Amino acid sequence: AVLALLDDLHPADIAEIYGELDLDEAKYIYFLLDDDTAADVLTELPEDDKLRFLESLPSEVIAKRFIDKMDSDDAADVLGQLDSSTQQEVLSHIEDIEVAGDIADLLTYDEHTAGGIMAKELIKVRDSWNMNTCIRSMRQQAEEVDEVYYVYVVDSRDVLKGTLSLKRLLLSPEDIQIRDILNEDVISVRVDTSTDEVSNIMDKYGLVALPVVDGVGRLVGRITIDDVVDVMREEAEKDYQLASGITEDVEISDSVWIHTRARIPWLLIGLLGGVLGSRVIGGFIGILGEHPHLALFMPLIGAMGGNVGIQSSAIVVQSLASGSMGLDTNWGKLVKELTIAFLNATVLSLIMFGYNYIVDAGWPLSLTVSAAMFSVVVFASMFGTFVPLLLKRINIDPAVATGPFVTTLNDIIGMFIYLTFGALFYALLL
Amino acid sequence: AVLALLDDLHPADIAEIYGELDLDEAKYIYFLLDDDTAADVLTELPEDDKLRFLESLPSEVIAKRFIDKMDSDDAADVLGQLDSSTQQEVLSHIEDIEVAGDIADLLTYDEHTAGGIMAKELIKVRDSWNMNTCIRSMRQQAEEVDEVYYVYVVDSRDVLKGTLSLKRLLLSPEDIQIRDILNEDVISVRVDTSTDEVSNIMDKYGLVALPVVDGVGRLVGRITIDDVVDVMREEAEKDYQLASGITEDVEISDSVWIHTRARIPWLLIGLLGGVLGSRVIGGFIGILGEHPHLALFMPLIGAMGGNVGIQSSAIVVQSLASGSMGLDTNWGKLVKELTIAFLNATVLSLIMFGYNYIVDAGWPLSLTVSAAMFSVVVFASMFGTFVPLLLKRINIDPAVATGPFVTTLNDIIGMFIYLTFGALFYALLL
Ligand SMILES: [Mg+2]
Ligand SMILES: [Mg+2]
Ligand SMILES: [Mg+2]
Ligand SMILES: [Mg+2]
Ligand SMILES: [Mg+2]
Ligand SMILES: [Mg+2]
Ligand SMILES: [Mg+2]
Ligand SMILES: [Mg+2]
Ligand SMILES: [Mg+2]
Ligand SMILES: [Mg+2]
Ligand SMILES: [Mg+2]
Ligand SMILES: [Mg+2]
Ligand SMILES: [Mg+2]
Repeated sequence: AVLALLDDLHPADIAEIYGELDLDEAKYIYFLLDDDTAADVLTELPEDDKLRFLESLPSEVIAKRFIDKMDSDDAADVLGQLDSSTQQEVLSHIEDIEVAGDIADLLTYDEHTAGGIMAKELIKVRDSWNMNTCIRSMRQQAEEVDEVYYVYVVDSRDVLKGTLSLKRLLLSPEDIQIRDILNEDVISVRVDTSTDEVSNIMDKYGLVALPVVDGVGRLVGRITIDDVVDVMREEAEKDYQLASGITEDVEISDSVWIHTRARIPWLLIGLLGGVLGSRVIGGFIGILGEHPHLALFMPLIGAMGGNVGIQSSAIVVQSLASGSMGLDTNWGKLVKELTIAFLNATVLSLIMFGYNYIVDAGWPLSLTVSAAMFSVVVFASMFGTFVPLLLKRINIDPAVATGPFVTTLNDIIGMFIYLTFGALFYALLL
Repeated sequence: AVLALLDDLHPADIAEIYGELDLDEAKYIYFLLDDDTAADVLTELPEDDKLRFLESLPSEVIAKRFIDKMDSDDAADVLGQLDSSTQQEVLSHIEDIEVAGDIADLLTYDEHTAGGIMAKELIKVRDSWNMNTCIRSMRQQAEEVDEVYYVYVVDSRDVLKGTLSLKRLLLSPEDIQIRDILNEDVISVRVDTSTDEVSNIMDKYGLVALPVVDGVGRLVGRITIDDVVDVMREEAEKDYQLASGITEDVEISDSVWIHTRARIPWLLIGLLGGVLGSRVIGGFIGILGEHPHLALFMPLIGAMGGNVGIQSSAIVVQSLASGSMGLDTNWGKLVKELTIAFLNATVLSLIMFGYNYIVDAGWPLSLTVSAAMFSVVVFASMFGTFVPLLLKRINIDPAVATGPFVTTLNDIIGMFIYLTFGALFYALLL
């Protein structure tokens, strides 16, 4: 009965149910599934469940029931989670040496490169063939490949020459030569192209599959859009979490412990920032004692610095990520950012001046608030723009700049600016 | 010479160059392009460039040179930007009434639904046909369709029955009946399914194309992954910008004016929050005058409240977006969130207690800081969890909750808690 039920479900749905089961139930159900479904379900499982499950199985079972039934990219992802002696053992149990070799090859690539997300399964034909030979060979190759999006055309040295769209295949006569109908404008990437660039390319040109070539142009694999979408999702989630002060890639279903571990580092940095801030304020304790009203607008100045800084860095981080902003040619952008900052700073400090006039806050406080507001907004905006650029240049993910880091620094500097103006105006005007 | 150069470029690359040209140059180059390329370039242009360009052209040119050469989904997107009388005029210039009807039909759907991103071009065959008839019909239909991913199988009433993968087509004999080889487990969506759900479904099941059916199951269009990727990107960028306090979807290339307009609303809200905060602090001005050291940790408490609130709401917002958290069954999650908050609150307030002990801050201040820290962290975390859930329930995008809104409220409430504890402990212990 369970089996009949499972039979109707998609592997991705079975994988979802898995999250709710304990290890023994999971194993029991697993062995009820047919091999192909079982392998698909494993591919869809979240990383930690996958690992927990695999570690409970002997490597021969892993090899024959799972790895052998998977696409090479998914097989490499699964194996990549195991330690390297287990990897060797599992690979030794795979009968087809070519399959094992493909997976071993994929394991060597960095997961953030095209090689790390490509699969070996693809359909390729020779440019010297005619349509008839081509179709015969494709029929054979199609048995190995799940989805056929494009047929790749290579020469006798395996160098990628072009593609043959399925539409062309449907529309061309049987005796035509492949080299006469192939599309030569094929977009490909090298194995070492970063996954960010891969996703930008596929997005820009609207591709569903992208051939991957080695250093001399030989076709070594293909990337499919579903895997790139996974990369994009992960990346967007990670950036969003970084911007929110969460360091690890957590899911809501993760344990309390993982959540705490992911959140506390930024909180500690915030704490350190706050403590440093208290030292800065401590330097002005005399004037604060004399003029406690100065304390009224401390949170406002801190908050504005934080907000403006995050706005500026978010724009830069996104532009860097989408490739619409390089590391050069940034002067125009900085001038623009500065103009925006001046506009905002003027509006905000005028409003505060009006407010303080209405509530009769007195000249020293009014001037302090507006002058500090203006300076803090301009400063935070410059800071928010430069920090991500700087991080990018020293090869740190600029997305960390939109997190509590920029906010915290802006807070401290904002306090210093505000209280310095306060000391100045109260000394001058009282 | 220009033409030869353009000839080698991909439409997406030409669209990029366009950003750098003024309207007259753009027009000049445009009319050098062949019709198909020109239409593709137009599709790839950013929204505002597209509109500016179209508004400068007579509607007959728009119809014949652009709309008629585009895929129906892109045509509808372009037309959707024009006012409805221009839409009518353009459509009246399209010769093929069926093409015009398809586009007019697509224009009726909300852009956030499956109908709003689907295209009418698809290849469908009847379940009662045999492979031979099927291939003949597909050849005809393929002329109209750019990319062929799946062939859809319908019955005599046009109701979707299944798909025929291209792999199956390659591997099956010519005389077999379609109904004997179709894959019945086809995943489809209704025209009114939200684009968020569409992208979750395509991601979950790893699909590159998704058929769209009407209320009674008839096949009306198909969605392709490239358009869903665009939706995902837009959505991720929007969420990221919301989290960063930017209200409109801005690009770094937009004008100073657009940037200012997008940023100032949240800054004004922050300003309002800061002013309200100053009123709250004003209520404690007496104790601040007596004990100015209380001001030392005001920024720290404000910052911690903000950081914790954003962490909590980011997790909830992401879970709501990916569908991994519904609106019900949230009690367990709240208990978990509360546990994490208690852990973090304990760690942070103990550290601050230790610090204040070392710097000899005195009992009243030490107790105030640690008690306020504990309360603010727990409170902010609950607040950050509830606000997005509440927003979702009243149909506001929960992503706005991770922006300055939650931070600002947390700032004010944090100040109130801190100064209340301050008043209490100084009164009790001095
Ligand atoms: Mg991999
Ligand atoms: Mg696109
Ligand atoms: Mg794959
Ligand atoms: Mg995958
Ligand atoms: Mg990134
Ligand atoms: Mg994740
Ligand atoms: Mg549309
Ligand atoms: Mg996926
Ligand atoms: Mg499309
Ligand atoms: Mg599109
Ligand atoms: Mg955008
Ligand atoms: Mg959203
Ligand atoms: Mg703050």
